[in-house]
Amino acid sequence: MRGTLHLLPVGLGEADASLWLPAAAREQMAKLDCFIVENAKTARAWLKQIGTSHALPDITMNVISRKTDERTLMQWLEPLTQGVDIGVMSEAGCPAVADPGARVVACAHRIGAVVRPWTGPSSLLLGLMASGLDGQRFVFHGYAPIKPAERASRLRQWEQQSARQQQTQILIETPYRNVAMWQALIDTLRDDTRLCVARSLTTPQEWVRTLTVAQWRQKPPPELDRHPTVFLFQTA
Amino acid sequence: MRGTLHLLPVGLGEADASLWLPAAAREQMAKLDCFIVENAKTARAWLKQIGTSHALPDITMNVISRKTDERTLMQWLEPLTQGVDIGVMSEAGCPAVADPGARVVACAHRIGAVVRPWTGPSSLLLGLMASGLDGQRFVFHGYAPIKPAERASRLRQWEQQSARQQQTQILIETPYRNVAMWQALIDTLRDDTRLCVARSLTTPQEWVRTLTVAQWRQKPPPELDRHPTVFLFQTA
Repeated sequence: MRGTLHLLPVGLGEADASLWLPAAAREQMAKLDCFIVENAKTARAWLKQIGTSHALPDITMNVISRKTDERTLMQWLEPLTQGVDIGVMSEAGCPAVADPGARVVACAHRIGAVVRPWTGPSSLLLGLMASGLDGQRFVFHGYAPIKPAERASRLRQWEQQSARQQQTQILIETPYRNVAMWQALIDTLRDDTRLCVARSLTTPQEWVRTLTVAQWRQKPPPELDRHPTVFLFQTA
Repeated sequence: MRGTLHLLPVGLGEADASLWLPAAAREQMAKLDCFIVENAKTARAWLKQIGTSHALPDITMNVISRKTDERTLMQWLEPLTQGVDIGVMSEAGCPAVADPGARVVACAHRIGAVVRPWTGPSSLLLGLMASGLDGQRFVFHGYAPIKPAERASRLRQWEQQSARQQQTQILIETPYRNVAMWQALIDTLRDDTRLCVARSLTTPQEWVRTLTVAQWRQKPPPELDRHPTVFLFQTA
């Protein structure tokens, strides 16, 4: 009997867990004593907070980075073949979406383990819901290029793609570059393209607004500096 | 003071709400007495189940379809301008993703209402997490064409896009056509493309498997008939 790889959500910021964590996911976390995580310190603090049923020093906590090689991942997943369940937790939100957790999941499939995704907060999905933009067809690009000329050209390319495929475009930026990204969007996109800014989702600083680019230009810039933000846009 | 438009999740199938519903979202649902929903009957049954604090006949339940015009939507949102909160619920999962709810949200932004997305189950996101495919860049296409030749050509086009942009491709199908879609994927995609089948997520019938197309061809077809399924693939 193979163990199960549980993909467990963590919060997106300072927000009470009752806002975003289903009770059964919390119970599942509290039961496990073997994890693969992005940051051991925050993972231990979180397990302590939800009330793990194990002594913290007895919990195995393997820390994954982009550099962790496949052989190491396979060793960490070895307990699955003996029927031990393992939890995967990201630094924020749902594991294996925009983080190195996907490689852990891929290895688990190779050894035929059961993979169980638990419901939790995803800034991409919450942003899409709250944007009012088309949720029938959408694309997540990750990060845009940093160099201004390259970035503008890529944004124009994505805008054309939005028009051609009637598709919502989703991107993120490193929080300290949010203001520059907002400016680039405002300077580059067409007047009638709808742009959504979804800031600090699930937290008390949550703020979501969708306006046309022309409308955004007439307003003072939103406060985005160092707040996790998702940008979404769709052509008229 | 404007009211808030609450985007509230419902379940993906027969699954206990503790598995997928945060407690605060449940409390928010129970408080509201004005809704915009895809199906009034299932919405009323659900409110009854979670224990609404209102008498069912006192709850306003406006039913949206793809044909609902914008003037009607604006009338339904009128209470927001008087400070009344409104809930939006889909037939399954998160509202405004792959359903008509996005138009309600767009109207709410036009009148400057606060839009609040609540964490809940999305088969697209849960499928992506559990697939082990790249979550750093992905696209959701909705449905593929139904006619076999057109469908095969589109799948090949998406496969090329996956290779070119290192992007996970996500699609859904009407449940009674799942078996045909699985066959089309197996017949059309390259041997080494990884294909994930994510069935009946969050329910007791949940089943997720990622294999290369060559590996899938050597197995008996999975049981997908009439089970909600998400298909995901990525080239090697």
